Amino acid sequence: MENKLMLMIPGPTPVPENVLLALAKHPIGHRSGEFIQIQADVTANLKWLYQTTNELLLLTASGTGTMEAGIINFFSPGDRVLVIHNGKFGERWALVSKAFGLDVVEVTAPWGQPINPADVQAALTADSAKAIKGVIITHSETSTGVINDLETINKHVKAHGALIIVDAVTSMGATNVPIDEWGLDVVCSGSQKGFMVPPGMGFVAVSAKAWEAYKTAKIPKFYLDLGKYRKDGAPFTPPVNLIFALQASLEMMKKEGLENIFARHHRHRDACRAAVKAMGLELYAPDGHGSPAITAVSTPAAEEIRKVMKKKYDIVLAGGQDHLSGQVFRIGHLGFVCDRDILSALAALEGTLAELGTGKSNGAGVAAAAQILSSK
Amino acid sequence: MENKLMLMIPGPTPVPENVLLALAKHPIGHRSGEFIQIQADVTANLKWLYQTTNELLLLTASGTGTMEAGIINFFSPGDRVLVIHNGKFGERWALVSKAFGLDVVEVTAPWGQPINPADVQAALTADSAKAIKGVIITHSETSTGVINDLETINKHVKAHGALIIVDAVTSMGATNVPIDEWGLDVVCSGSQKGFMVPPGMGFVAVSAKAWEAYKTAKIPKFYLDLGKYRKDGAPFTPPVNLIFALQASLEMMKKEGLENIFARHHRHRDACRAAVKAMGLELYAPDGHGSPAITAVSTPAAEEIRKVMKKKYDIVLAGGQDHLSGQVFRIGHLGFVCDRDILSALAALEGTLAELGTGKSNGAGVAAAAQILSSK
Repeated sequence: MENKLMLMIPGPTPVPENVLLALAKHPIGHRSGEFIQIQADVTANLKWLYQTTNELLLLTASGTGTMEAGIINFFSPGDRVLVIHNGKFGERWALVSKAFGLDVVEVTAPWGQPINPADVQAALTADSAKAIKGVIITHSETSTGVINDLETINKHVKAHGALIIVDAVTSMGATNVPIDEWGLDVVCSGSQKGFMVPPGMGFVAVSAKAWEAYKTAKIPKFYLDLGKYRKDGAPFTPPVNLIFALQASLEMMKKEGLENIFARHHRHRDACRAAVKAMGLELYAPDGHGSPAITAVSTPAAEEIRKVMKKKYDIVLAGGQDHLSGQVFRIGHLGFVCDRDILSALAALEGTLAELGTGKSNGAGVAAAAQILSSK
Repeated sequence: MENKLMLMIPGPTPVPENVLLALAKHPIGHRSGEFIQIQADVTANLKWLYQTTNELLLLTASGTGTMEAGIINFFSPGDRVLVIHNGKFGERWALVSKAFGLDVVEVTAPWGQPINPADVQAALTADSAKAIKGVIITHSETSTGVINDLETINKHVKAHGALIIVDAVTSMGATNVPIDEWGLDVVCSGSQKGFMVPPGMGFVAVSAKAWEAYKTAKIPKFYLDLGKYRKDGAPFTPPVNLIFALQASLEMMKKEGLENIFARHHRHRDACRAAVKAMGLELYAPDGHGSPAITAVSTPAAEEIRKVMKKKYDIVLAGGQDHLSGQVFRIGHLGFVCDRDILSALAALEGTLAELGTGKSNGAGVAAAAQILSSK
């Protein structure tokens, strides 16, 4: 049906009406007192969401551009970094690091499996010469729906002393990432994820320790030079209308409260996982390691399921990336998603399974989800 | 008065209502067939506006990020480039080039004066060894309201054989930049300028000759690696809603037609310049070299004038940048600006001069502008 699209992908995520209306306001001058006040307000609320008093910088860039900034500002060519990866995005940070001449060592796990913190500990303990200057980790791996144990891994990094750079693109605003409490150095995310805003902006939090490393970092940079953003919040024309939208969405998030936001995402993850199991489908991420932002389902019928979901129920699910293309579909439950949306998507999934004659479509999936939603 | 702001700055520029409404649509998936069709439509219309069959790439970045992409993709560290500059933005491209290890030689003119094409010719003729690999030029210098003679300068570059990289940030969509006819290699602009869209996106047109240079260019890059955008129009999540808006604005521009758009900007430039002279104020750019996007006015009362214009008439003018701060104000007449807007701004300027007791406020300024608007 026209104009009835329901987005259940891990970005762009659904955007609330008042945020869309804020987006549609006439732009104002980005050097005006009014805008500077808005930027200050947005920055303060981003720090609340990021749970940090570190500097919080706003870039006109996608999540990848923002992560690139998070990497290149703190190292010099030849510096060794440990890139921890178990999916497409983690692999990308190894590619970015190599593109800028970093000496990349890796700790990996197969796609769909979590990183074993002991492997990270072993790699860091072996580095008695402290050659590793930074550890780069993807918290919620969007390509597989696996969340890595950032808290434990970070403890090993802290024991070693390297900087930790966190891709929190799909975990920020979905689960607890207490930057100051854990001492995370560089943490990146993007507007089209938990922030309930369309794509086009990224955010980086930078610790005092990372700024120390910045002073001697020699990778060439200009547009993504975070020192420029530190000095002047908007050294280059900022995305004024997206910032209007972000102001509105952050107000909504503050009203809901961090604990409630995290609980909602965890509840939706649990409901989706219970339903998928009850429908006789296979979860791609093992129990205990499912991302609160996205649930990946492994099935050879992935593309047929996505087609029917779109055509019959106007629900957009994400497909598999790279070698997972055609082998998994991914349910995004990130940002502006309520309990009803989860039941809608799962009920439509049961209808789709019935139509395709695959899996179980006896109502057990929706019932399992409803059980979780009503008990939490 | 609340919500009565009139933007007369060189970006963000005013945005039409239907473009704002397109911006406020619910986002869709950027890998969907529907979005790929929109991106194809937008790209085709951008090529129409850019007057080119070259590849046209869309980045999530400000104008500076887009120009950085236009520079770093085609050279290796140590390569010599000639940066032509006579204002803040031209100077910035020298800084970007140096940041990435290029060997920068310069042809300059004082701020407020046009580049002398003969100076460029002399610098290129002297380079008999063809050490200069690229020439970087700002077409319309936003900081001063001077437009450089790109057509003539480009002929000298063509005679030499270097690549030409053009900052057309405030000239594209304001005056004729026939890329294919002139053989311009790399041409950059940004959404918040002549495109009538809020800030957040940049566009780069790349010639076959530039792609040849790309093959051997070794400056490190990832997010701004144009080869990735050439291969996959949206290698990283694109700013979906800004692209909806751009689709709507390009449709409007096609209806108006290139010749009419250029004539309107030239008419507004001429009207502003005639009015400023009749008001006894000093134009910062000499006759024959005024930008069709922006008119800079030199007066020690610049900041007082801007304050009254904003407070009493709800019109935002731009101030001077860097050492011109407090010494000039700038009237933006770029993008979604009609004849009435020009008369409104100039009438308010006369009112402001009367209030401040400076310049001439006898109606001659508005009359001079009206004369030009009615005769063209």
